[in-house]
Amino acid sequence: MPTTLHDLPTPCLVLDRPRLQRNIDRMADRCAALGIRLRPHLKTPKNVEIARLLLARQARGITVSTLAEAEHFAAHGLHDQFYAVPLAADRIPRIAALVRGGTTVVCVAHDADAVPAYAHRAAAEGIVLPLVIDVDVDHHRSGIAAGDPDFLAMARAIHAAPSLALRGIMVYAGASYDAPGTEAIAALAERIRAGGVAARDLLRREGLPCDMISYGSSPGTFFARSLEGLTESRAGVYPFQDLFQAGIGACTVDDVALSVLTQVTGRQPALNRFFIDAGGLALSKDRSTAGHAFDAGYGLVCDLDGRPIGDLVVASASQEIASVASRSGQPLDMAAFPPGRRLRILPNHSCFTAAAHERYHVVDGGHAVAAVWERVNGW
Amino acid sequence: MPTTLHDLPTPCLVLDRPRLQRNIDRMADRCAALGIRLRPHLKTPKNVEIARLLLARQARGITVSTLAEAEHFAAHGLHDQFYAVPLAADRIPRIAALVRGGTTVVCVAHDADAVPAYAHRAAAEGIVLPLVIDVDVDHHRSGIAAGDPDFLAMARAIHAAPSLALRGIMVYAGASYDAPGTEAIAALAERIRAGGVAARDLLRREGLPCDMISYGSSPGTFFARSLEGLTESRAGVYPFQDLFQAGIGACTVDDVALSVLTQVTGRQPALNRFFIDAGGLALSKDRSTAGHAFDAGYGLVCDLDGRPIGDLVVASASQEIASVASRSGQPLDMAAFPPGRRLRILPNHSCFTAAAHERYHVVDGGHAVAAVWERVNGW
Repeated sequence: MPTTLHDLPTPCLVLDRPRLQRNIDRMADRCAALGIRLRPHLKTPKNVEIARLLLARQARGITVSTLAEAEHFAAHGLHDQFYAVPLAADRIPRIAALVRGGTTVVCVAHDADAVPAYAHRAAAEGIVLPLVIDVDVDHHRSGIAAGDPDFLAMARAIHAAPSLALRGIMVYAGASYDAPGTEAIAALAERIRAGGVAARDLLRREGLPCDMISYGSSPGTFFARSLEGLTESRAGVYPFQDLFQAGIGACTVDDVALSVLTQVTGRQPALNRFFIDAGGLALSKDRSTAGHAFDAGYGLVCDLDGRPIGDLVVASASQEIASVASRSGQPLDMAAFPPGRRLRILPNHSCFTAAAHERYHVVDGGHAVAAVWERVNGW
Repeated sequence: MPTTLHDLPTPCLVLDRPRLQRNIDRMADRCAALGIRLRPHLKTPKNVEIARLLLARQARGITVSTLAEAEHFAAHGLHDQFYAVPLAADRIPRIAALVRGGTTVVCVAHDADAVPAYAHRAAAEGIVLPLVIDVDVDHHRSGIAAGDPDFLAMARAIHAAPSLALRGIMVYAGASYDAPGTEAIAALAERIRAGGVAARDLLRREGLPCDMISYGSSPGTFFARSLEGLTESRAGVYPFQDLFQAGIGACTVDDVALSVLTQVTGRQPALNRFFIDAGGLALSKDRSTAGHAFDAGYGLVCDLDGRPIGDLVVASASQEIASVASRSGQPLDMAAFPPGRRLRILPNHSCFTAAAHERYHVVDGGHAVAAVWERVNGW
């Protein structure tokens, strides 16, 4: 069995455990200081060992993005779940099976016209389905504006249905991703917080329950000045971080815990570039650093210790190979990159890069693989 | 077991078999007319039923992009293989196991400095490894220019090694992807053809073997005026086609055989958009239509019969949800898109969208699922 970064088959994922733990600790400390419950979003790691590291530090309960995750984590004893994606009614039978097994799965309502189907399906399954309403504050993603007349009508319909239970609302600080810089993120966080509190007050004035106010985004949690009035954060990307998060100032490149192990397969000295065996499938086609001051192409090129090499980036990506070049066009020392030399690539967007792989190879700062942790992909 | 597009769990892949067969027939006829052998690249379908449909029509042998594909297809009796990615020497033990099982796996050399490791590893495994040299004609991707002094040195080194066998060269018409229009594709195809023939002549003048000249790209094969002097085409995307291929004129939208089944989860009438449960993970983040006259966002929105609905496109994609909007800003009839309505999304780049899923749900033009075909993902 391969046991070091020198003999693992490439391409594959490498996870730096000291960085992972540092990122987990930092967010746990921050949420403790803010006085907000942390319910981490496992859509990024999709792995039970990492879930346990999160739960060992302040986190109570988990957030999931697919029923495949929900079922996997329930089977591993994680029974307090928030399924934070607008619910398709035909998924309720699978959710009911989880509920009957002792798992709480809070679900999300986005559209008033979906509520009758939720009520009907939940009743047919003999369960009471807990729901929060997806409240759109910044028009960044899904949800209904609290000022929309349908908002209260929807809340009343959920509250009135015997097979449904209104638990509260969710908000998302998605536009923090359009706002580089921690000051801009903090200002947006405050806007989202205020929007969530206003929606809560609307419900309470009508005598409707609102015990759960879930707030999303890692940078929005880390840089918020206050999250008063919200009950929990479902920050997700922070255990791994990535180049996008570094680009908006939410972390440094040294915080990025996830990388793709690859090797050189050939060079083109006349074109001042070389090729690696991690292509668009292994790295993902996410180009979210494209608008940043440091556009990393398809990833930042590091040595086997995870240290960036000059300003080398993945300049282009085919399906199974990619080219590496200097961002500034510095001449490369081709002798330093012979075929077979192994490298690690830091990802633009760790959620998407991780999703291209089945497992993590965990290292403790060195080259030895200390553990192999499986992911739960698909739906 | 779900048997129609109305009850399959979403998101998932739908494959239109009549379109698939039409695309296969069209390329087979074209290669027959060109007098070139077809060795289709299975990096797109990664599926054995589709491989058999290809082999039933003119194709002889297959091309693969990963050893996972090579092993899977060998296990299903497909023993004539070209592994068309620059070879990492440490993969030779897996290849040797295939060779010992009776499979021919022609591999690719890109860098002269890799040849000693190839020779050493192949000798250690007791096999003779067939190699072609990756020849770079248009600087679009990997390979060595035939004019580079290392080209002939590399060919001689391969020919001289008892554990290696020089089979010929490969070329790739990758820049046809930068050249919209069939005339531009045809002009580029001729340039690549001529480059391949020139490289062959160089080898033959030195008394070196060059029996295989593999030529790549679906549009470059379909629109080439002649492929004289080349021995085979490894066209790959044509069985499925996609919006990128339609955008460069290599097919029409009606030829696209692959789609993602999804459903509406909520609407935002004030923002003139609605949301579906196929996000960036189900659609891929490939944005290759971004530079085209018709930028399809993350995909083109169709009804359950696969017909485009107005000018609806996937405008933005989060991990598990995406927003749908009219490209031209036409007001949407929200009543036509209630929660639960099912839709099919045509992909920008079918290789990447397919790779996000484990299997195909095959339909024969209607809504009934006639077959479920498994993919072989990973490495």
